[in-house]
Amino acid sequence: MIRVLLVHDTYLLRTALAALIGREADLEVSSTSWPGAVATSRTLRPQVCVVDMDSADAVGPRGIRELSRRCYEGDGGFSLLALASAGRPGPLRRAYEERALGFLSKNASPDRLVEGIRHVAKGERYIDESLGFGFLEASEMPLTRRELSVLSLAAEGASIGEIARSLCLSNGTVRNYMAAITRKTGARNRVDAIRISQCAGWV
Amino acid sequence: MIRVLLVHDTYLLRTALAALIGREADLEVSSTSWPGAVATSRTLRPQVCVVDMDSADAVGPRGIRELSRRCYEGDGGFSLLALASAGRPGPLRRAYEERALGFLSKNASPDRLVEGIRHVAKGERYIDESLGFGFLEASEMPLTRRELSVLSLAAEGASIGEIARSLCLSNGTVRNYMAAITRKTGARNRVDAIRISQCAGWV
Repeated sequence: MIRVLLVHDTYLLRTALAALIGREADLEVSSTSWPGAVATSRTLRPQVCVVDMDSADAVGPRGIRELSRRCYEGDGGFSLLALASAGRPGPLRRAYEERALGFLSKNASPDRLVEGIRHVAKGERYIDESLGFGFLEASEMPLTRRELSVLSLAAEGASIGEIARSLCLSNGTVRNYMAAITRKTGARNRVDAIRISQCAGWV
Repeated sequence: MIRVLLVHDTYLLRTALAALIGREADLEVSSTSWPGAVATSRTLRPQVCVVDMDSADAVGPRGIRELSRRCYEGDGGFSLLALASAGRPGPLRRAYEERALGFLSKNASPDRLVEGIRHVAKGERYIDESLGFGFLEASEMPLTRRELSVLSLAAEGASIGEIARSLCLSNGTVRNYMAAITRKTGARNRVDAIRISQCAGWV
C-alpha cells in the first residue's frame, strides 16, 4: 500500500483528484491545501507527495521549500511528484531545485499520474515527455537570483526607491538591474518585463 | 438524466472532476477545454455547462461570452454553472454578466457541486453562500469600462503612446486615465494598480 498526500489549492478539485487516485487498490490518498501540507505530512507520513506547482502558495514561505525540507528530514522522507503546466517553466524549475523526483503535466491522463506515483514511490525518477520543452525553457532562465529579487519587488508594485531600500542598493543600481531585466526578457519596458516573467512563472 | 458538460483548462483535473460528477446516477458528464467548449456544446447538447472561470481562456474570445451566446440560441439552450474563487471578484462578475444561473466556490464540497447542477438544470438560481462577499466586491468594481481598456493594455506592457494610439486618445488623456486608475484602486503606482487589478481578476 502506497500512502499518497495530494497538495492542491482548492477543495473541490483536490477532492476530485484524490477520488481518482483512490480508485487504485494499491494507493491510499489524503489531500490538503498548501498551508496545511507540512503539518499533514508529519501526521500522515506519506511515501509520495503529489504537489500542484501552479499556485502562489507553492513558491511561498509554507510551500515546496518547507515541504522538501521536511521530506529530507531524518525521520522518514517521501518522494515529491510535481504537477506543472507545460507553458510555465518557472514552477517546474522550482520543483526541480527542491529535489522533486517526478514531474507530470496537468494535461496528462490519470493513468500517467498513477504510473508516476508508483515510480517515485520506488525512488525512481519520472518525467512526463510533454514537459520536455518546459525543462528546456527552465534551464534557459535568463535572470540571475539578484535580478529575480528586484523583479519580484517591482511586480508587487514597489518603486525604485523602495526596492533600493529593501535590498540595500542604490537607486542607480536598481535602475541598472531593471534595464538588464528588460533587455534579457526581450521586453518593451518594465511593465512588459513583469508580464513576461509572470507568464513564464519566474516571479 | 441530466447531461452535463464540464469546461476546465487541464485534462487531468477536468477528468477527475468529471469522474466525481459521473458517480451520480442521474448525471451524465463529458468534459472539454475552453477552446473546445462551444463546438462540444453543439454536439453534446447538455442541459448544464459547468465552467471554470479561473482561466484566461474563460474571458477570452472563445470563452464564456461565446458559450453564453450559444446557450441562448433558439435550438435548445442550457444553464451555466460557474466555478469561481472567493477572492477574485472579476471572473465572478464576468459569469454574472454572461447570465450564469449558478455560482459555486471552488472550495465547495462535491455534494454542493452536484446539488448546484440539479438546481440549475431545473432553471433555478444557485449561489454558494461562501461567494457572497465576492459578489459584494464584484458589485463595487471601481473602474469604468474605458479605464479597464486602458489598464488591460498597460498590463500587456503597452506604453502610454501605444495605449493612446490603440484607443484613439491623446497621451495626456491616457495619463489622466492611469492616474484615476491608480487612485481608485488605492495603488502606489501604475505597476501596483496592475497587480491589484490582476489579483482581483479585473484584467
